[in-house]
Order: sequence, then structure tokens, then C-alpha cells
Amino acid sequence: MLENGGMRRFKSEQLVRPLVRKLQPYVPGEQPRIKGLIKLNTNENPYPPAPAVLEATREAVDARLRLYPNPTCEGLRERLARLHGCKPENIIVGNGSDELLAMAVRTYVEPGHPHRAGRNRHTVQYFVPSYSLYPVLAEIHGAVAQGTALNPDFTMPSVGELRRGRVHEFDAALTFITTPNAPSGRSFPLEQLEELCAAHTGVVVLDEAYVDFAAANAMELALRYPHVLVARTFSKAYSLCFQRVGYFVGNEELIGALHKIRDSYNVNGLGQVAALATLGELAYYRAGFKRVIATRERVSRELEGLDFRVIPSETNFILAEPPKYPAREWLEKLRERRVLVRWFGQPAVEKYLRITIGTENEMDLFLKETRSILKR
Amino acid sequence: MLENGGMRRFKSEQLVRPLVRKLQPYVPGEQPRIKGLIKLNTNENPYPPAPAVLEATREAVDARLRLYPNPTCEGLRERLARLHGCKPENIIVGNGSDELLAMAVRTYVEPGHPHRAGRNRHTVQYFVPSYSLYPVLAEIHGAVAQGTALNPDFTMPSVGELRRGRVHEFDAALTFITTPNAPSGRSFPLEQLEELCAAHTGVVVLDEAYVDFAAANAMELALRYPHVLVARTFSKAYSLCFQRVGYFVGNEELIGALHKIRDSYNVNGLGQVAALATLGELAYYRAGFKRVIATRERVSRELEGLDFRVIPSETNFILAEPPKYPAREWLEKLRERRVLVRWFGQPAVEKYLRITIGTENEMDLFLKETRSILKR
Repeated sequence: MLENGGMRRFKSEQLVRPLVRKLQPYVPGEQPRIKGLIKLNTNENPYPPAPAVLEATREAVDARLRLYPNPTCEGLRERLARLHGCKPENIIVGNGSDELLAMAVRTYVEPGHPHRAGRNRHTVQYFVPSYSLYPVLAEIHGAVAQGTALNPDFTMPSVGELRRGRVHEFDAALTFITTPNAPSGRSFPLEQLEELCAAHTGVVVLDEAYVDFAAANAMELALRYPHVLVARTFSKAYSLCFQRVGYFVGNEELIGALHKIRDSYNVNGLGQVAALATLGELAYYRAGFKRVIATRERVSRELEGLDFRVIPSETNFILAEPPKYPAREWLEKLRERRVLVRWFGQPAVEKYLRITIGTENEMDLFLKETRSILKR
Repeated sequence: MLENGGMRRFKSEQLVRPLVRKLQPYVPGEQPRIKGLIKLNTNENPYPPAPAVLEATREAVDARLRLYPNPTCEGLRERLARLHGCKPENIIVGNGSDELLAMAVRTYVEPGHPHRAGRNRHTVQYFVPSYSLYPVLAEIHGAVAQGTALNPDFTMPSVGELRRGRVHEFDAALTFITTPNAPSGRSFPLEQLEELCAAHTGVVVLDEAYVDFAAANAMELALRYPHVLVARTFSKAYSLCFQRVGYFVGNEELIGALHKIRDSYNVNGLGQVAALATLGELAYYRAGFKRVIATRERVSRELEGLDFRVIPSETNFILAEPPKYPAREWLEKLRERRVLVRWFGQPAVEKYLRITIGTENEMDLFLKETRSILKR
């Protein structure tokens, strides 16, 4: 049996890179094993995939499982290209968009931490608060993680304000912008995104994981600017978290560079089948988006009636500052009542709870428990 | 629409790392879209997954697809730990073992190419010929790729011979050993593997992708030596290529370091379901291994009868030097007859064809076409 004592002979410094030894692993939202919890913590769609998608996936569970899947997701990329009005060469599919975000860091950013000149080539930049994975990816790569603060109401400073602030690097090798943003739920106006992209000289990834719940999207920027990529996922809006399918759209050269470092068979076959079937059922999903949006608006108003301060959301979740108790206590009080929401310890958002929009019924139960906490 | 001309404004040197621009992408074996080909080129198992595995996977295709899968493959790791007599902490599951091989390079090897001192920390080492992905992974990481030649008959030089050869680095940060080896099909004796592992001071990965078709395995070395990891996959022997599930077994510290750089949800949910169900059906698969081995032995003897020089195989494929025409011509002649085999251009193996073992019927057709090529 393994004994860690044996490591001494080998000096673990020689076995694991110092960079990796120092890393703290990224902690994803809790995936509880307990049944009966109301799970409003990881922004999953409360509605299942379309029946035709389940049917197509089930039908593909046969002897073909013994064969390798299509290594480049050919069929799926062709279909996505038609949807977005580009070529299959403008698309790469990943094992969830998380895989592609990590690959973007490895493809566009030099590892290292120079203090002065040339720092831009080593910089992974992102707004704060946004997806907490970005700085983790920079650290794993040994690159510079550079966070630019959003305004206190989570709107984005203008290019002029960012220039005057002298922190934002317009020549950063890679800048991630989540839009609509998480965990704030706010979207950024297209004109502001375009102004910002135009001011950048490095690669900009517009991470549109939640865009199907928003009024507008920025895909046209990826199709117009050679240094802009748009990230999309089948996980959230298309109810396929389980199967890990996301994609990037953008300039052929930038996409081609990602393909070079991709694992040969990075996207599982049943995920490819399910994603392709999804694109034939968009009407079903769009009806679901409307339901989620209607629930979001209703819950936002009800929470405001209970003295929560709600950030306007264009996503399938709400960021809200609760009254009476600190947010962290709310997290625990709701957990005791079998409702799981998310709380982030970072200064910019520690006063808030992030609440995923569930079904009408789940949100009624959430509101009922919320009222009972307020009454005590 | 995207115009690459627009790239000029942005100078692609600023957008893609020079390291990545220089890379040639790894070319996996052909996955033909044409039906009716006899596919003996990518070492897939000719027999489908067990009926109970297909059933369990189909049953899991339901509303759960909207939820994230277990991020650490908890259930699967617990079951694998029982199988191998270790703890779940000694196991990491990957999106195919390819993902884990790439992660091992990023976890244990420093990027860079120093000419003299300290080169060992930057070295990814492997035997030649073996899995052609290893040097690709070293190049992607910007590390030193160091190939050590096997003997001309594909057996492994002894530790003494390797020391005298002065090429092999016993202190390389990471050494990959495919056992049984590909594309030769030969296995390495356990005593020789142990002697080699004991002589190394860096991490050694024993890549046992084909071990279920062999007489012995080296799992005990991963359980005894703190610097040895064993790689296994559900792809080949367990007919799950489509779903991308592989794993590493070894020391908790080395495994823990891999977990730190892992994508949060790296293994799709249906893959986890299928792999777990597979472990309940081992008798079915073991019967299949026996059939493949029996077919392999029969085909080896028949090919020898046709003047092929066959390397003794302990895998589900055969490396064989064909008579009359160069191997590359055989590849084309068989392709014309709708039989797909594999040929590698590297000097050590360019005289050989690699033939995956298919069903009895497929191999009869292969032998028939082979005889017809010889008669012309």
C-alpha cells in the first residue's frame, strides 16, 4: 500500500513543480448528494433538455460507444457555423467552455511574472467581480492575474475612466469579460463592449455563458474583430451541464491556435449528439428562457418588497443584498431550511447572496423560507 | 464577416504565443465517415459494451443532464479504489487518459529548454517507438522532449545498458513508459519495469492502456513506489472510447497535485455512469479479452504463414512487417479494399503495419484481402 513516508526518499520538490505545490484548488459550487434540497447555487437551468434531445441521446447509446468520437466535432461545428453565420473554422468545441477558457490562457499568454517591460504578454486580465475561475487559470499557468474593479454598482467603467485609472492593461495578452456578468447578473451595453474591445490590442474573450437570458448578445464583435472571441456553452441555458459542451467563435487564426493544443478527442460523443439535437429544438429552449426570465422578474420584485437590494439581472440568477442578517448568515439559515444558494467571500460581493432561478414552485418555496427567516 | 486581413492591424505575434504558432498539431488515427470500411486503425475493441452498461447509460439520460456531474468522480473513484486495493485519494479520473497525460506534463515538468544544468526538471522522456503523443505534449508545454531508443526488436535495454548509453535521463522530471507498448504490441517484464522505476528519481507514468490484453500488469509498482503512477483507460478494453474516461493510480501527493490543475468538471456525467456500470460487468469484458487474444494469436500465425514478420503482441493489435511491398504501399492497397490499418512514418517502425484486432469475421476479411494482394 502507498505510504507517503516513502516520498521523503524522493523529495517532493523534485516531483511536483513549485508552481503547482503552491496552488489552492478552485472550489466549485456544492453538488449535494442529499435528495430533496432546493438547489439554487450553481446556475443550472431548472427545466430539462427537450424530449427530442433526450430521445436522440438515448438512441445513440449503442455499440458506437466503443468507437472514438469525432475528434473535431465536425457535425456540431458545421451546424453552429450556420447558426452564427460563420465557417466551421471559426469554431472550436470544448469539454465545457471551462476547458476552452483554460486553453485560451495557455495559447495566448506567456507564463512568467516580469516586473516591468513586457508584462502585458504575461497578463490574464478580468473584471472584479466576475467568474472566479479566471485568476485560478492565470495562477495554474504561472502568469500575471490582473483584476480591474467594476463600479460599486457592477456597471463597467468607460474606456476613458479605465485609462485614467491606470490599472487596466489595454495591451494585456488576454482579457476575459463575462457578459452578462456573474455573479452580478448585469449585462454590459453592446456599445460599451465594442468601445472596450476596440481599445484593446490583445485577445479579448467575451464569455457569454448566460447570454440566452439577456436582451442582446455580442456575437457580432467576434465576427467583426480579429482579436475578439465569444464563449458559449450548452451547460446553462441548454440544460446540458452533465455532458460538458461549450464553444468559442472567432477569427480562424486564433481558433486554429487553440486546436493545436487541444486533446485529440476532447469532447465526448454523447455530448456531441445531445448538443447537435439541441440545435434542432431551439423553440423549446426559447420558451424555457421566457419562463426563467418571467420568474426572475417576479422573484426580483418580491425580494425588493422584502427589503432585499436586487441588482438588475439579465441572467438565470439574481445577486441580492439581504436585510436584517449578514449574507453569510442568510446562506446558513437557508441551508438549514434545505435551500442551497451561493455566497462569495470576496470584498466586492460579500454583502450579497447569489440565487439561481429555479422553477416557479422552487422559487415559491425559497420565498416562503425567506419570509420565515425575516419573521423570526 | 471575419477577414484575416484584419489580423494585420493586430500582428498575430502579439496574439498567439510563439511556442504555439510553431506547433504542428497531433494527427489522430482516421475516423472515417464512410460506412462499410473495416476499421483496424485506432485500436478500438471490436465488441460493444455490456448490455447492462448500455442500459444503465440509457436510463441516466433524463432530467439530470441539466445538472453538473460529480466534479471529482466520487462514486467511480471509490469503486476503482476497491478494485485496486487503494484509497480514492490515490485516484484521479480524466477526460480520457490523454487529458491526464497532458496534465502530468504540466504538473511535474518545468517549461523551458536549458542547455546544461537543471535540464532534468524540464525533460519529458519516453521510449522510441511508443505513443506518439508524448513528444507532442512536451512541445505544447515548451519542455524538452527526450526519446530513448528501444532495441531493434522493441525490447527494452536494461538499466545497465541505458546507463552506458548515456542518453537516458534517470533524473528526468517525467518519464512515460507504455506497457504493453504501442505500436510494437510488446509487453515489458515486470522485473525489468521495477528495476527501471527504482533507478529513476523523477515521476514515472506506466501507461497501461492495453494491459487487459496482456498476461500481467504493473499496478503493484504504483502502489509501492511513491514516484510511480499507472495510467488506465475505459476506452480500449472496456469499449468506451466515445465517452472519454481514463484514470491514474498512485501516491496521494502526486495525484493531489494533478487535482489542483484539473478543470472543475472534467469528466462528463454519462461517462461516469457508464464507467461505474462497467465495473459491475467485468466477467463480460474478460470473456471479450479472451476472444480478442484468441483472434490475435490465430491472425499472428496466419500472417507468419504469409511471410509477415510479426512482433509478439500482448495488446489488441499486431505490429507486422509485410512481405513483397513496402508497408506504406500495403496501407494504400488495403485502403483500396476498404480495410483501414495504421502506418507510422517514423524510422523505427516505417517497415511495419499496425493492425488492430477486429472480430473474427473482420479479420477473416482482412486476411482474404491480404492474400489477394500477395497473389497479384
